[in-house]
Amino acid sequence: MTAPTLDEDLEDALAGPAAVGGVAAAGLRRARAWLTRAAEPGSVDLWRWIDEVGPVAAVRALRAGVAPEKARALVGPRAGEDASLADLRRAERCGARLVVPEDDEWPALALHPLTVAAHDGGDAGQSDRTTALVPPVGLWVRGDPPLDATVDRSVAVVGARASTAYGEHVAVDLGAQLGERGWTVVSGGAYGIDVAAHRGALAAGAPTVVVLACGVDRAYPAAHSAVFSRIVDAGGLLVSEWPPGAAPHRHRFLVRNRIIAGLTRGTVVVEAAARSGAQATARRARGLGKQVLVVPGPVTSAMSVGCHELLREPEGGAQLVGNAAQVIEAVGSLGDDLVAPAARPASPRDGLSDIARRVLDACPVRTGVSAERLAAVAGCDPLEALRVLPALELADLVQRTGTGWRLAPPPRKRG
Amino acid sequence: MTAPTLDEDLEDALAGPAAVGGVAAAGLRRARAWLTRAAEPGSVDLWRWIDEVGPVAAVRALRAGVAPEKARALVGPRAGEDASLADLRRAERCGARLVVPEDDEWPALALHPLTVAAHDGGDAGQSDRTTALVPPVGLWVRGDPPLDATVDRSVAVVGARASTAYGEHVAVDLGAQLGERGWTVVSGGAYGIDVAAHRGALAAGAPTVVVLACGVDRAYPAAHSAVFSRIVDAGGLLVSEWPPGAAPHRHRFLVRNRIIAGLTRGTVVVEAAARSGAQATARRARGLGKQVLVVPGPVTSAMSVGCHELLREPEGGAQLVGNAAQVIEAVGSLGDDLVAPAARPASPRDGLSDIARRVLDACPVRTGVSAERLAAVAGCDPLEALRVLPALELADLVQRTGTGWRLAPPPRKRG
Repeated sequence: MTAPTLDEDLEDALAGPAAVGGVAAAGLRRARAWLTRAAEPGSVDLWRWIDEVGPVAAVRALRAGVAPEKARALVGPRAGEDASLADLRRAERCGARLVVPEDDEWPALALHPLTVAAHDGGDAGQSDRTTALVPPVGLWVRGDPPLDATVDRSVAVVGARASTAYGEHVAVDLGAQLGERGWTVVSGGAYGIDVAAHRGALAAGAPTVVVLACGVDRAYPAAHSAVFSRIVDAGGLLVSEWPPGAAPHRHRFLVRNRIIAGLTRGTVVVEAAARSGAQATARRARGLGKQVLVVPGPVTSAMSVGCHELLREPEGGAQLVGNAAQVIEAVGSLGDDLVAPAARPASPRDGLSDIARRVLDACPVRTGVSAERLAAVAGCDPLEALRVLPALELADLVQRTGTGWRLAPPPRKRG
Repeated sequence: MTAPTLDEDLEDALAGPAAVGGVAAAGLRRARAWLTRAAEPGSVDLWRWIDEVGPVAAVRALRAGVAPEKARALVGPRAGEDASLADLRRAERCGARLVVPEDDEWPALALHPLTVAAHDGGDAGQSDRTTALVPPVGLWVRGDPPLDATVDRSVAVVGARASTAYGEHVAVDLGAQLGERGWTVVSGGAYGIDVAAHRGALAAGAPTVVVLACGVDRAYPAAHSAVFSRIVDAGGLLVSEWPPGAAPHRHRFLVRNRIIAGLTRGTVVVEAAARSGAQATARRARGLGKQVLVVPGPVTSAMSVGCHELLREPEGGAQLVGNAAQVIEAVGSLGDDLVAPAARPASPRDGLSDIARRVLDACPVRTGVSAERLAAVAGCDPLEALRVLPALELADLVQRTGTGWRLAPPPRKRG
């Protein structure tokens, strides 16, 4: 039995529904697989055209040489090639898949600001692929858990590759504390702050997401090959816009940064030199209306200059954070803002006092901790924590366990 | 020949002018000397009454037992005592004097926000002497230079007594760089950050001002006796609201903090623990509409927690600074704002580009430095600095010397 050709698959996709049971049709997925190899991501023109005619028609037009001028120019001779089936199979062999917008697990809510920017954002700054705000055509994902649930409560932790011991200590600590509190750390897997944040999450037994600038079957940097494997084994994900085997070309890191900012509720910069990539990611986050959080450091450290620059930008809206509780306080509230009020059921959380919210945010998801520990993380008096905990328990928001207080499991979803 | 009695001096003061040749009448000065010993400073009620009836009538009423109830309660049995002449002589013996609002050297412009707050600020928060915003009745000053000129371009640098090596390094550096650029560092002379900032200014051969919570003939802490002497010898000043011999009672430090904030254009906090005195001074500065500038530090340092708290206060208006150029940029512009636009002659500075201003602010007043050094301080490229320096020289703002660039001396004042 031979596999269907690309043309056959595309034909089928045009005839049938886009998705069945929350999973995109095979032809649609194959069309998007073809597109991830045919065109470098980050082009607003290409994305708009695909969005307008649909991915299947777009691929057919490109292959037939009848696509719009700009789209043809971007794809060039790759229009005549097809590795879509090979890419999908290569992904499968390393435990990966292509997640597409027609899948239920597509992180549509998180990526919504990118979609809005590409749709309605005008053309200012959108012609440069390294700064354009445009959603991915699809995301290659390695690891089992669904992408949307994994990044629903996520924060990007990024920073310098040439980090200091101070920065790495802070990044590990943030990664661990965010992980303990049920937040997913998203980063770029690079040397320095990125990998320290991933390692912190791993140490807390929490999922973490690496957004790569190369194929998810490759490790870049190669020295992080073992860490990436442990991340996948621990329920985390490797994510990339590029198909399996793609090389980490220099410009791809800049294009990739918008995905780190785009998947998360906010970006924490731990250490950054002046004019650095971490600053660029933070500005992408700001451009998307997401929180920009910055960890300060000694003013004598070159690795904190970029952080302090972000905090000094008059209209920057960057917020200084010193620990995980402050990060959660900032992204938690933004999360509430992002969800349209009408669609949000009234939550017991709504009526909470400031202290109660902070204590709640300080609660770990797994092993319960003492009220004293919660108070330390929440930055309040232990007595204040003890005063609000009974009310939080009555509202089914926290649970008392043998080792202390932890978050109550969320109510089951419908369906 | 015997000295005139207090009553004789007061009588004379009522008959003659308040000041002659910019110097307050002897009786007026003696009345204010009496008041600095009779009543603890910081009372808005007392200040308003003195402002209304004048210091001479106030002293006469207090001594005659016919002052308003509140004023009498504040002064108590001290109404029957008089050490005014002894205090003035004791001050003279240690090279000090009492500067009063009727003197030309009274820093009226700097203290203006305190005066406005005491006049029109309402009574909210004004009943507690440790937080009230009220001008001093007079200031005991040890050291030769006029008080107003010394604090005209001044910045408070305050912080923790239990400072770290990092904080002290930053404070010394700030003190030296501000001093080099013609700015006076004002602080409290305490252990840790305060004295480090004073020492930095001394090292730059620049005047610095210690605002004490005891008499200017005493050294508190005693270990700083030699530093205080060097400060006076180097053209700096010791300043206090309390008369010679007064002891540094605990509550006086809090009352004193408003003078540190009040004399300066802005307050820089270098290190501060949570809920610390340095934070209190910063909040006093903010209450006066002066700049609150904060040096961040490692989030792992308890001595930076208070700094980060200030930077995180949502309505705090505190600004992060990392070096002297950023401090000067912030307080320089505030200075321009404080002076009424109509009264300000058009200055060649007005039309300068951002880079040119920063380079100008980086210029030392004494020994010229290289364009490279200026660029490093201004935070710009050496080439950019070299591009703006000729224009600054043409505008008579900078001078080229044997060792490099420095500020040009200001044009002579009228009169």
